Amino acid sequence: MIIVKGGVTAPEGFLASGLRAGIKKSAKLDLALLYSEVPAVAAGAFTTNRFQASPVRISRTHLKNKTHQAVIVNSGNANCANGMAGDRAAWEMACSAAAKMGLSGREVLVASTGIIGVPLPLAKIKAKVTDLVGGLSARGAGDFAESILTTDTVRKEFAVKFKMARSIVSIGGACKGAGMIHPDMKTEKHATMLAFITTDAAISKKVLEAALEEAIADSFNMVSVDGDMSTNDSCFILANGLAGNKKIEKRNGDYKKFTDGLKFLAGELARMLARDGEGATKFVEIQVAGAKTKEDAGKVARKISTSNLLKCAIFGADPNWGRIVASAGAAGVEFDPGKVDVLLGGVKALSNGAIAKNYDKEKARPFFKGKDVTIRVDLKSGDASARAWTCDFSKEYVAINSEYST
Amino acid sequence: MIIVKGGVTAPEGFLASGLRAGIKKSAKLDLALLYSEVPAVAAGAFTTNRFQASPVRISRTHLKNKTHQAVIVNSGNANCANGMAGDRAAWEMACSAAAKMGLSGREVLVASTGIIGVPLPLAKIKAKVTDLVGGLSARGAGDFAESILTTDTVRKEFAVKFKMARSIVSIGGACKGAGMIHPDMKTEKHATMLAFITTDAAISKKVLEAALEEAIADSFNMVSVDGDMSTNDSCFILANGLAGNKKIEKRNGDYKKFTDGLKFLAGELARMLARDGEGATKFVEIQVAGAKTKEDAGKVARKISTSNLLKCAIFGADPNWGRIVASAGAAGVEFDPGKVDVLLGGVKALSNGAIAKNYDKEKARPFFKGKDVTIRVDLKSGDASARAWTCDFSKEYVAINSEYST
Repeated sequence: MIIVKGGVTAPEGFLASGLRAGIKKSAKLDLALLYSEVPAVAAGAFTTNRFQASPVRISRTHLKNKTHQAVIVNSGNANCANGMAGDRAAWEMACSAAAKMGLSGREVLVASTGIIGVPLPLAKIKAKVTDLVGGLSARGAGDFAESILTTDTVRKEFAVKFKMARSIVSIGGACKGAGMIHPDMKTEKHATMLAFITTDAAISKKVLEAALEEAIADSFNMVSVDGDMSTNDSCFILANGLAGNKKIEKRNGDYKKFTDGLKFLAGELARMLARDGEGATKFVEIQVAGAKTKEDAGKVARKISTSNLLKCAIFGADPNWGRIVASAGAAGVEFDPGKVDVLLGGVKALSNGAIAKNYDKEKARPFFKGKDVTIRVDLKSGDASARAWTCDFSKEYVAINSEYST
Repeated sequence: MIIVKGGVTAPEGFLASGLRAGIKKSAKLDLALLYSEVPAVAAGAFTTNRFQASPVRISRTHLKNKTHQAVIVNSGNANCANGMAGDRAAWEMACSAAAKMGLSGREVLVASTGIIGVPLPLAKIKAKVTDLVGGLSARGAGDFAESILTTDTVRKEFAVKFKMARSIVSIGGACKGAGMIHPDMKTEKHATMLAFITTDAAISKKVLEAALEEAIADSFNMVSVDGDMSTNDSCFILANGLAGNKKIEKRNGDYKKFTDGLKFLAGELARMLARDGEGATKFVEIQVAGAKTKEDAGKVARKISTSNLLKCAIFGADPNWGRIVASAGAAGVEFDPGKVDVLLGGVKALSNGAIAKNYDKEKARPFFKGKDVTIRVDLKSGDASARAWTCDFSKEYVAINSEYST
């Protein structure tokens, strides 16, 4: 597997565009389009929040269609809590793009991100659809990745290429999300993180769904910036078959190869989200080992990754590992606290549930001063492990989020 | 029922003291003692964290004793994750106080709050036990309430008095806690919030436990400052019977009267915790109505009360109610999002799941600018309701918690 450039347009037959429609008050790009030159199969995973934004509801319906060719996305407005009018607006957003491309509305998926409870400025979107379709290009991935951002500070793109028998398969992706990031997405026809993945692999829709489910479990669903689950989290994948590989229709060796590539890409994108979390000055990886089950390991890792106290300590480069212990114990998972080890970078702080002999805070501090902080918790109660990603919690986070909508 | 002064020494026969033992680096008081002149029955509720601090383990054991006469408390050190040495230190702390008062160790309960993973400075405590016992006084409630504080900015005391047949019963209390506040305590022999409640009511130990369980459910267990559950949360109640009322031995009218008083006091103390949360500039009450069950109502209220995004918005006086909706939907509770109403102070923002007609953010803003912010969510799916309390999330919170242990 090799890492390549090109983001969502790295795979064969995908075009993208992005422009400014004036949805955001700023002069930033806010409307994006992703297009496959040939019909593709698609799968989606959506937020499990009881409140689901209108684009989530419309995309879930549209995913029942056999094939898809496009995804239209706006930033600056979540089109959530807008009632029936919101659903209609999301549907019209998809349809207006479809009409310009000669597609039916159901072949177009739709996503939105931004403020909740403000009517979608549909007229602004419609006014730009012609330009958006006209702007589609194999070099449009950058504009696409730019247009979907909200409080993000950097574009988030990634692409890989690997051999499958005699074919070369590519997977590309872009994602956004810096706040309200604590996704728990399910493909069972249910983040605001948005992720768009493209591939030229030939794969059946059903198997594509399974691959997506596997890939998000250990990637997007293990990222948390602030513990707040969004109403709009969505992850889409489109597979257009142009790589010409033998179509993947069951969970065979090719499926494994494809899923490995997808997992790698999703993991990279997910970590970009944590690294660019609102106000983040540091990237944090929580590794949990020795749990009884993978679910347990995930729960503990995720709980630690949402500790405000720990994240403030990391911001202050303070190796206050008591906060790790307290969070691990609050995860609702069974383990023997008397066995637990905690490592801060390379320094063992807790050994069998008590302060490690020779633990020296000053030896741990350098690990907390770096840009990347790794915390390892070994429960020593089993063989299962998991990783979760987050960022530190800075004064800037509070500044960003106390002045957001006004 | 009338509100009276005197805190933990308001009920008959209770004495208290507090002094500086040098556990804290600052010159603040850090060691406290509560004493009943006659044997009292006691009940306790403790953190459900898998990691339990040594004083929690020791107090749970000591509570098996039939009667108790004292509680010794230190601040500045949590005596948690200190292994067997920590358990021994907590036990010695209780025993050294017991010896000076002519009690057995098991008649003394113990609590600690402060940093995790630093050995308890037992020698400093032992050196001050004589002064602590000598200082016991019916006017010592203030020193007691002061000595148990950590990052708290104010003492938290309350007391009530009410008639029960021909007797006058009093209940007094003190509590502490400003950070790592998201208690979920159970009396089933399992915050760092600490609460100490005294009463001169005559009541059996078993019934006292039931009363405490009822009282904490709607008070301490509904407060969250930062969503971080502590390893040390403890709530103790001592009942010495000196009011001379007919002993409450079952859940009768007197039990109801006593429990009402206890609930009122616990609610007042709990709200003091939220009001004095680390970095707090505002007090926030979340009211949830129309849930199918009380548990559902509590889950939704508690989930909203832990939204970092909402709490930042409240800090910035930004009526960003989309964040309320997103949190409610993430609580894992079944309800119809299309029915939900949200009120910000007196202004309806969401009506039947969509923006209320005539909603004007500028009308809501004054409610968010005040010191007390009330948010009401009506799920309109049932008759159950709950309240949760929190505070806003300020830059000061981050400052406090990035510089805590160093």
